[in-house]
Amino acid sequence: MTFTHPIIELEKAALERWCNGDPASFLEISAEDVVYFDPFLPTRLDGLDKLSAYYASLRGKIFAARHEMLDPHVQEIGTAAVLTFRFVSYGDNEGAAMRWNCTEVYRKQAEGWRIVQTHWSLTGQAA
Amino acid sequence: MTFTHPIIELEKAALERWCNGDPASFLEISAEDVVYFDPFLPTRLDGLDKLSAYYASLRGKIFAARHEMLDPHVQEIGTAAVLTFRFVSYGDNEGAAMRWNCTEVYRKQAEGWRIVQTHWSLTGQAA
Repeated sequence: MTFTHPIIELEKAALERWCNGDPASFLEISAEDVVYFDPFLPTRLDGLDKLSAYYASLRGKIFAARHEMLDPHVQEIGTAAVLTFRFVSYGDNEGAAMRWNCTEVYRKQAEGWRIVQTHWSLTGQAA
Repeated sequence: MTFTHPIIELEKAALERWCNGDPASFLEISAEDVVYFDPFLPTRLDGLDKLSAYYASLRGKIFAARHEMLDPHVQEIGTAAVLTFRFVSYGDNEGAAMRWNCTEVYRKQAEGWRIVQTHWSLTGQAA
């Protein structure tokens, strides 16, 4: 099954900017009450202010020469939509691939779809 | 802020059974269209049938002498509810702690709240 959904396009556009060092891409489409997990942090971040401060510390430090969203899947529940996908990113010179699992929960607001929950983790890291 | 919500109680009850070796606890409250990530698998599992087969392979292999849900947080979006928390589990004799991040998306159905998305990962595993 191949999914097409506006939030897949939003997510791909944000990832494209993210992989070129611009973390503002995700902040622009995250809600005030966003919560966030990634595998580098010792805890969850609660709220856009905390996520903004964290992402500011990453500005210019992120680069992927090539990246790909794998197998995106969307579940709609009223005005919520749950996007799950795997993601693979490569550094310069086709360096080691990093493989990720990602869950994004979007909420449809007056201004458009906004992320309320992000969870990034490394695929198979405990296998 | 301390959250109380029916899905926190559901999740705690399922975790209690899970930590005593009974994976059916989560299957009973998962929807047919559930999608699932954990850090042991090379891919996402799509659907209750696949999750049931996977959990059957784990029956009796899981045990935690002690476990704790940390900082549960719920975001309601209509009939969807997003539960995020950290989790720590200990084996026998206070063995090494395993620390987890978890996102559960529940959907309110006629028969009650059901999980449509589960994402387990290890806290800080790439730090």
